[in-house]
Amino acid sequence: MFVARVTGSLVATQKVAAMVGWKLLIVEPYRLEPTERTSLMSTGRTFVAVDTLGAGVDDLVLITQGSSARATPETKSMPIDTIVVGIVDKVHVESHCVYSREE
Amino acid sequence: MFVARVTGSLVATQKVAAMVGWKLLIVEPYRLEPTERTSLMSTGRTFVAVDTLGAGVDDLVLITQGSSARATPETKSMPIDTIVVGIVDKVHVESHCVYSREE
Amino acid sequence: MFVARVTGSLVATQKVAAMVGWKLLIVEPYRLEPTERTSLMSTGRTFVAVDTLGAGVDDLVLITQGSSARATPETKSMPIDTIVVGIVDKVHVESHCVYSREE
Amino acid sequence: MFVARVTGSLVATQKVAAMVGWKLLIVEPYRLEPTERTSLMSTGRTFVAVDTLGAGVDDLVLITQGSSARATPETKSMPIDTIVVGIVDKVHVESHCVYSREE
Amino acid sequence: MFVARVTGSLVATQKVAAMVGWKLLIVEPYRLEPTERTSLMSTGRTFVAVDTLGAGVDDLVLITQGSSARATPETKSMPIDTIVVGIVDKVHVESHCVYSREE
Repeated sequence: MFVARVTGSLVATQKVAAMVGWKLLIVEPYRLEPTERTSLMSTGRTFVAVDTLGAGVDDLVLITQGSSARATPETKSMPIDTIVVGIVDKVHVESHCVYSREE
Repeated sequence: MFVARVTGSLVATQKVAAMVGWKLLIVEPYRLEPTERTSLMSTGRTFVAVDTLGAGVDDLVLITQGSSARATPETKSMPIDTIVVGIVDKVHVESHCVYSREE
Repeated sequence: MFVARVTGSLVATQKVAAMVGWKLLIVEPYRLEPTERTSLMSTGRTFVAVDTLGAGVDDLVLITQGSSARATPETKSMPIDTIVVGIVDKVHVESHCVYSREE
Repeated sequence: MFVARVTGSLVATQKVAAMVGWKLLIVEPYRLEPTERTSLMSTGRTFVAVDTLGAGVDDLVLITQGSSARATPETKSMPIDTIVVGIVDKVHVESHCVYSREE
Repeated sequence: MFVARVTGSLVATQKVAAMVGWKLLIVEPYRLEPTERTSLMSTGRTFVAVDTLGAGVDDLVLITQGSSARATPETKSMPIDTIVVGIVDKVHVESHCVYSREE
């Protein structure tokens, strides 16, 4: 899995039948800023994820990719490869809190 | 999943039997333009996707990769790893509409 | 899937039992040449693919990766992740024929 | 699989039900330092892994990705794609010990 | 699949139960040297693979990744994503023998 920031959403009226009714989020994977190692930064990549948890723009989320994205009761029959599996509260790296949802 | 623009098509007369009869599209993954963050741009990569939705050249589509590409009734017995699962109408990132099919 | 050019072959006498008897091809993924967009060019990567279709050196082929490589009658019990699923005749991108097998 | 160093942890209170109760670690993939080839160095990437072995910060661990992350008794029903499958004691490359947990 | 050179090994005493007893090799993926195209060169990446064939340091091996790594009798219940499926004897690219185990 990786952490990603929710930055937007996507609308697709014509889609595979099993996918109707679920929210599609634009997410950008984040990684540790390599110099100071005290914050997270964007990798510059863009993915689309199915969300069953109610994440919103600016939330940091935990993303699962591949066939495991179909390993939840809601998504088991959907042709998807990217899903939000958690909304992140805090990330600690070494002695630093590099992300806190409260701030 | 990721968004990609349909830019062409591919013909392969000799192919695995289960794949006969389905359209093969050339698709180029898109990502958010990193400076202004108000449009999408090509990643420069090229994939081939099976399409069951009738997407055409210039459409922005939603692509699923991996074994999940076989998680639709039409594709379950095909040895494929890339499929069009939606035709994109709109993409919003932060306060911007970065793609609209109507324009 | 992606398109790749067959550039060679590989011999491995000692191998997993289920793989005995099938041809192993060296394939190099191709992508659209980014400036003119009227031809295909190598990505510089090298993969090894199982071939059940009789592709030869210089053929442009369609490659499936991941567990879907095992979704054919011939390959279902093989521990493989890359397979030739088609021999490409033509590729069109926008208004150009960027590859034709006849030429 | 690849080797990675555990550098932190992640808290996500809202998550998919099957994931409740398991520790989520921040791990950074390592590779061989290319010039001297006598030590390991970070690739600069960041992943989140489920840990069932009790690994701690600074441990070098062995990571499995993809659907195989669900091939353990503890994780078989979790929508995860990254798991710690071993805590590394030693890594030898050519005639060098490039990592030893004891040091 | 891809070709890789075995360059070392890894010891992990604490590991998932199903993995006990199998050798873990350090392998470095190789690709065609792009200028002369008459030899293979390292990609600079490092993976860890399960070996059931008895490969040794310096051998060039054929590697399968993903869930297909579990498609052998020995590995079907192991949470692994990388396996040695062959020991390479020869690789030919265009009119050149770019690798021979005998040399």
